[in-house]
Amino acid sequence: MNPLQLADARLDHVGIVVHNIDAALATYCGLLGFRLLERTDVPDHGVEIAFLDAGRATIELLSPTDEESGTARFLARRGEGPHHVCFVVDDLDKTLAELRARGLRLIDEKPRPGIHGLVAFLHPQAAHGMMIELLQKTETL
Amino acid sequence: MNPLQLADARLDHVGIVVHNIDAALATYCGLLGFRLLERTDVPDHGVEIAFLDAGRATIELLSPTDEESGTARFLARRGEGPHHVCFVVDDLDKTLAELRARGLRLIDEKPRPGIHGLVAFLHPQAAHGMMIELLQKTETL
Repeated sequence: MNPLQLADARLDHVGIVVHNIDAALATYCGLLGFRLLERTDVPDHGVEIAFLDAGRATIELLSPTDEESGTARFLARRGEGPHHVCFVVDDLDKTLAELRARGLRLIDEKPRPGIHGLVAFLHPQAAHGMMIELLQKTETL
Repeated sequence: MNPLQLADARLDHVGIVVHNIDAALATYCGLLGFRLLERTDVPDHGVEIAFLDAGRATIELLSPTDEESGTARFLARRGEGPHHVCFVVDDLDKTLAELRARGLRLIDEKPRPGIHGLVAFLHPQAAHGMMIELLQKTETL
């Protein structure tokens, strides 16, 4: 079996789901001192998000804006806290094909547009309860 | 209020708690392709851990070896999955004093020895359900 691309993957960000972005920013930026890089609404995913500088990676705070979204269901079930970890890969199609061939359970069978490129999520069951996001950064974003 | 050190903190690793390190390594290294950097037993903390290369940061898999440890209680309550996120700071004593002055709830009131330096954990309630570890790397480790 060939080595998988994740051997060269770089951690991009850690996603933390919260009830309210303003309240979370008051803690993370106001109290903890992280610097806000970007804040945006992502209606397609039913979430509002904020990226914070963490040196070699970022922290993503995300809060559902659509009660039917997967993020809203996650928050209702688990409460606030860690949600996913994101790795950058060079060729997402190829990585997904390799993961599928290894029998790993995917949430997204093919890449879909994210705010920083093409993204796909693995099911938490694929990685011992850790939801992994894969990101192929696009030059135009 | 002075800017907190976390404004310059670098993400060091994401900790994922699992039932069994061997089973998790079979997935993370065998199937997902991450490279194992280090594996060790930490009897003082009642855990067995493994660090995996993630480019600019690392993934820490941890599995309790002591049923009375905090990690064992976490695993029993939440199941496998994300456990904590670790940031490197330059002066842990100073950072903890600043956090305490801001009324943030700490698990460790003072730095204690970790395997890569001095560490202290914030209570998950301090950061919207995300357990934050702070690490002051020591040259001798």
